[in-house]
Amino acid sequence: MKSKFKTTDTFNKIWGLNYWGQRLNDWSELPPRDGIINPGWKLEWERYSQWMTTDFLAWQAAIVNEYKRPDQFVMHDFAGPPRPEVNESDVVKSLDIAAANPYHGTQDQFDGEASSYVGDYVRSLKQTNYLITETNAEAIGWDSKEQFPPYDGQLRLDVYTHSASGANMVEYWHRHSIHYGQETYWKGVLGHDLTPGRAYDEVSRTAHELQRIGPEIVDIQRKNQVAILYSNDSYYGIEFMKFSDRVNYRTILRQMYSALYRSNVGVDFVLPESKNLSAYKVILVPPLYVASDAVLAKLVDYVKGGGNLVLSFKSGFCNEYSTVRWEMAPGPLRNAAGLHYQEFSSLLRPLALKDDPFQAGAENRVSDWAEMLIPDTAKPLTSYDHPFFGKYPAVTRNSFGKGTLTYEGTVLSDKLQQSVLLDVLKQADLTGPDQDLPRPVRVKHGSNRAGKTLHYYLNYSNDPQTFSYAYHFGKDLLSQTAVDQGQQIAIKPWDVIIVEEK
Amino acid sequence: MKSKFKTTDTFNKIWGLNYWGQRLNDWSELPPRDGIINPGWKLEWERYSQWMTTDFLAWQAAIVNEYKRPDQFVMHDFAGPPRPEVNESDVVKSLDIAAANPYHGTQDQFDGEASSYVGDYVRSLKQTNYLITETNAEAIGWDSKEQFPPYDGQLRLDVYTHSASGANMVEYWHRHSIHYGQETYWKGVLGHDLTPGRAYDEVSRTAHELQRIGPEIVDIQRKNQVAILYSNDSYYGIEFMKFSDRVNYRTILRQMYSALYRSNVGVDFVLPESKNLSAYKVILVPPLYVASDAVLAKLVDYVKGGGNLVLSFKSGFCNEYSTVRWEMAPGPLRNAAGLHYQEFSSLLRPLALKDDPFQAGAENRVSDWAEMLIPDTAKPLTSYDHPFFGKYPAVTRNSFGKGTLTYEGTVLSDKLQQSVLLDVLKQADLTGPDQDLPRPVRVKHGSNRAGKTLHYYLNYSNDPQTFSYAYHFGKDLLSQTAVDQGQQIAIKPWDVIIVEEK
Amino acid sequence: MKSKFKTTDTFNKIWGLNYWGQRLNDWSELPPRDGIINPGWKLEWERYSQWMTTDFLAWQAAIVNEYKRPDQFVMHDFAGPPRPEVNESDVVKSLDIAAANPYHGTQDQFDGEASSYVGDYVRSLKQTNYLITETNAEAIGWDSKEQFPPYDGQLRLDVYTHSASGANMVEYWHRHSIHYGQETYWKGVLGHDLTPGRAYDEVSRTAHELQRIGPEIVDIQRKNQVAILYSNDSYYGIEFMKFSDRVNYRTILRQMYSALYRSNVGVDFVLPESKNLSAYKVILVPPLYVASDAVLAKLVDYVKGGGNLVLSFKSGFCNEYSTVRWEMAPGPLRNAAGLHYQEFSSLLRPLALKDDPFQAGAENRVSDWAEMLIPDTAKPLTSYDHPFFGKYPAVTRNSFGKGTLTYEGTVLSDKLQQSVLLDVLKQADLTGPDQDLPRPVRVKHGSNRAGKTLHYYLNYSNDPQTFSYAYHFGKDLLSQTAVDQGQQIAIKPWDVIIVEEK
Repeated sequence: MKSKFKTTDTFNKIWGLNYWGQRLNDWSELPPRDGIINPGWKLEWERYSQWMTTDFLAWQAAIVNEYKRPDQFVMHDFAGPPRPEVNESDVVKSLDIAAANPYHGTQDQFDGEASSYVGDYVRSLKQTNYLITETNAEAIGWDSKEQFPPYDGQLRLDVYTHSASGANMVEYWHRHSIHYGQETYWKGVLGHDLTPGRAYDEVSRTAHELQRIGPEIVDIQRKNQVAILYSNDSYYGIEFMKFSDRVNYRTILRQMYSALYRSNVGVDFVLPESKNLSAYKVILVPPLYVASDAVLAKLVDYVKGGGNLVLSFKSGFCNEYSTVRWEMAPGPLRNAAGLHYQEFSSLLRPLALKDDPFQAGAENRVSDWAEMLIPDTAKPLTSYDHPFFGKYPAVTRNSFGKGTLTYEGTVLSDKLQQSVLLDVLKQADLTGPDQDLPRPVRVKHGSNRAGKTLHYYLNYSNDPQTFSYAYHFGKDLLSQTAVDQGQQIAIKPWDVIIVEEK
Repeated sequence: MKSKFKTTDTFNKIWGLNYWGQRLNDWSELPPRDGIINPGWKLEWERYSQWMTTDFLAWQAAIVNEYKRPDQFVMHDFAGPPRPEVNESDVVKSLDIAAANPYHGTQDQFDGEASSYVGDYVRSLKQTNYLITETNAEAIGWDSKEQFPPYDGQLRLDVYTHSASGANMVEYWHRHSIHYGQETYWKGVLGHDLTPGRAYDEVSRTAHELQRIGPEIVDIQRKNQVAILYSNDSYYGIEFMKFSDRVNYRTILRQMYSALYRSNVGVDFVLPESKNLSAYKVILVPPLYVASDAVLAKLVDYVKGGGNLVLSFKSGFCNEYSTVRWEMAPGPLRNAAGLHYQEFSSLLRPLALKDDPFQAGAENRVSDWAEMLIPDTAKPLTSYDHPFFGKYPAVTRNSFGKGTLTYEGTVLSDKLQQSVLLDVLKQADLTGPDQDLPRPVRVKHGSNRAGKTLHYYLNYSNDPQTFSYAYHFGKDLLSQTAVDQGQQIAIKPWDVIIVEEK
Repeated sequence: MKSKFKTTDTFNKIWGLNYWGQRLNDWSELPPRDGIINPGWKLEWERYSQWMTTDFLAWQAAIVNEYKRPDQFVMHDFAGPPRPEVNESDVVKSLDIAAANPYHGTQDQFDGEASSYVGDYVRSLKQTNYLITETNAEAIGWDSKEQFPPYDGQLRLDVYTHSASGANMVEYWHRHSIHYGQETYWKGVLGHDLTPGRAYDEVSRTAHELQRIGPEIVDIQRKNQVAILYSNDSYYGIEFMKFSDRVNYRTILRQMYSALYRSNVGVDFVLPESKNLSAYKVILVPPLYVASDAVLAKLVDYVKGGGNLVLSFKSGFCNEYSTVRWEMAPGPLRNAAGLHYQEFSSLLRPLALKDDPFQAGAENRVSDWAEMLIPDTAKPLTSYDHPFFGKYPAVTRNSFGKGTLTYEGTVLSDKLQQSVLLDVLKQADLTGPDQDLPRPVRVKHGSNRAGKTLHYYLNYSNDPQTFSYAYHFGKDLLSQTAVDQGQQIAIKPWDVIIVEEK
């Protein structure tokens, strides 16, 4: 078979000339990445590096496709997606099934968020179910500094966390812990003594449950009305011109995800190239620092058509080459946002929002960055409590076409971010009883092969929790108990209830 | 033209032999700087490196001098002077005019000190007026982490800060912010949108003022009675044998400057080779760790002739080769200082001075280093509050010839340093109404081309200030208002008043 | 003479094959240490590196032995023993006398522990007296950041500290401080001024005392009933798979030593290859992570025969190749310990022991590591105060044969460690009046050449101390004053009393 892996030719075709304007014969002639001080060049370099991986995996998949049986499939296990070094959305075009290896905090750090974050992202890649091909068993670590065996119930709860997110399989790295080498403490389902223990027993119990209820929960379909736009390019663009050592593209991305997760709002990911934006009532946009005019036009159209967009600071600042736009910021988004700005300031110390508009108390705090926003048609939602910055709004909202654009000109505290997002969701009529559950209880909804609606309730805490069941009559698949609408349900520590509606 | 830039020959002529005593054929035979463990050798290496820059610039200047018109001049813009890597006082011998590029804190960090520090130093280099060739416009940074656009008024106030220090021009790095590359966020007078904004408006207003009052403030002559002795060699000598990770030659140099600046005391810089010491009533000497016998003799003569010297610890410890003197410390300074010492100690924790002699409260604190001083004829001014160190004075004063030598054997807190220096200034009859101004108001004095006296009052704060004008009848050049001696004057936030005496 | 230093041949004989299973022609073919991710290989590499030093020193000693006079001796000065990079117990086989260069804290950091720690270890190497060939004079440092000249009396007290531990000589690095080079601030008995000062005077006074009482204190014999097992291999095994950035093999080793030192309990060191374990009533074992079956069997026999063993967590985990044992932990120690475990956890935050069993208050705190111990026959002494870990004991004790094994499954605070160890010593009938001395007073016992018993009392504080003398009638060698049993004795700051029994 002829390989498509023609690095140098392709690269030359793309770039033609090297950094000094000479013809490139070999990509090794390029200056080292750290030596490139033009952020645009650094970004192209990252794109090229991603493309090499995509191309290589596509070539491998093509070879496998020549020989595999019809009942076999091609899969790749993404480590820690979304991972900026890899263009996962391009890679999946060569795959039959997407898979991921999410590792996460355990013991007091286990709340299901890390597993759900990876799951929601991987599910969005092919917009269907996926596999978990590695995850925490007894403990992990390349030394013994972070050995945190899960509390009783956490291994099982993690399996149902994945299942509720859309995973059709959960697999562990190895059966038994190994006795030498780098992964001595990356432990298996069995320990070094090769004897069944606590982890083995729990995995075994869960497997037997899945044997029983698997057909009713496999191939779960999720229908979410909220999406987050993920832009790998914006991550790199900001990294090359960081605005903070503490906050970056990924922390805001994760803060937005986390606010939704803790509010029990189901979420998909969309990408700059996605064509299905209008499927969502609300789209959240972490700092979209690098984007072409076409991508920005698509967002403007989304609002015009009735969508509710939440836009972070720095969005629209650079074009697709990470070059700052030489028009009034935020460039093509100006009309939809209903504002412009000429200046921005780092914040040496956090500032309060005037009059604590969200009753956030000690968390009434913005930091790191403040765009000096000047509303054209937008309404200020809140402003800074500061002699100089006080004249600029911190968050605005603009009605544009049939939709709204909420603009965040600064880095909000977690509590403020959650307040702003819940306010947007409420405006979009997306809130309800799921937001009233006890703090450690998560709920996820979907429908199974038989088209029946499933409600997963998961308790991520050491304490039993009680809540009122808000949906139609059904039964808990695990206990086979009937559940009525409005009924009080008790859920044990680190336990799960899966209600299948009638 | 024949270049004078003959590195290897000159170096061999200076050094002759390499580190191992063999004849050097090429300076690349020298061991790497970090490998040289003899501080004397490391110092010579730095001197050689400085000489290369001096020689290169002299060669360039000589070429320009062959071709330039009589109305043109040769200038060099020093970045962040005093800068140890460059021997600025040697470089200026080839220049017609000295210039500097001082960048400084803005917003709440702007108090004029950084601009004045650089200005006082560059003015002292050629003992006349100088140019500012780059300084903060909208914001600076090689990423976007420290974008601090000035508050309203600060850009203008900075121009007058430079003018009062002796600058005949203030120039910015570029007109408009650039859209890609390392200096994307090193912003110009215009932003990326290329449209006039807040910064442009303020620069424009100031330029129009200068058009009007320029002839009355240009070529200001400063006459100061206090000087600070700057020794580049001592900086390096101490760096090679650091006494603290927190304090070094430059922190003490700056602490002394800062104490004078905040007390509204005008200051020049002198250098070890300066011949005009007797022009000053008071000279402050940061740790003069490296100095020849001749330099020390000059300081002794200064005191003998009636000067008031303030000498920091470690002064006189090494000769000009950074070799410790094998006589009783502080070597040739012993008689003038009226003390000697055999031992010194690092201080693991700060100590208090006994009985808080300067009412410094929480700032009654010395740290890092304590010489175990034994007075011969000196009078102890204060001692340590400690069972072991208590027997040694911390600061002493000795009358010698017609002058005095005040010796600081330890690292003083900022407040203690200011108290000790003000005490010396008071003894020298150099204090007066300038020390009674409101805390954020600075005053600077000089005389203009017409020989008239100028008084600049500058308000570095967000609040209006009021003070009593203490000098002869005159008028404020900016408002053209008359000002009487003893009159109460109100000065707006980040504003300036320039009184020209009749 | 034919050298025994045949690195490559010997190495090949030992290893035969390289990392990739190919025949090694040259040890430089090995991958760099950092590249070896198999902890077992890394350990072998360290052993080989140690062997090179041992072999080289043996070769040097053999040459000297050919030529030295009968009254001369071969000695080596170990820097900072125990030092993992050197196999000191192998090196001493080529030496007539062991020596060491201990440097230690002075001023408020001087308590004699660092000098005693090195002394006890070096004395144990050849089980006899030793020399101190370098130690602190005026001050030390490769720069001037940590210049801490001793308080009055500390230089002399340090000499007697060494003498009480078994040193037959105390020597300083150099007579006078040098004037240039890296060790400019590594000061001698004289300062840079070459004139006698405070340090010289104290050293001189001490030397004259030794001239007088030397014959009565030289060749002191120490007889200790407690030993600490030191395992160099375990240090490396744990370093390659660290369980904490804060705690490691050496911190626990030192914590155990320190607990004994502060309790005035004399201690020897033993090594995995030692054959004299039964000479001790109590043996403390820091984490014996790497040990052969034979070494573990020796420890089991020690307990069986009546010894009292204190065993730290992680002991017995790996065999001599740093490979985890594939049997139930703690492997061959299981029966003697009377427990087993399948899991262990890092502790994200310190935990308290339930009900503060040792009245340790704020120090009732364990951290970093917790083995989930399951007692077979052992008795739990204390357990964790935690919902999940509460079911596992933290410390256990098992009676086995005629002895006991106390097992510590976690990292104890200093106070808890001291409490656990004093409890073991009390059970072994090894406590008495020495534990009742004032906090800063240390006592050490031995016998001199004449067979008379010596008691050194040393006051490591700025304050005078008083205590009751608990031993037989004798006289203080320094003051020649008689001392009766039960007599109250006053001891001055940083002073020493040496009682020789009649």
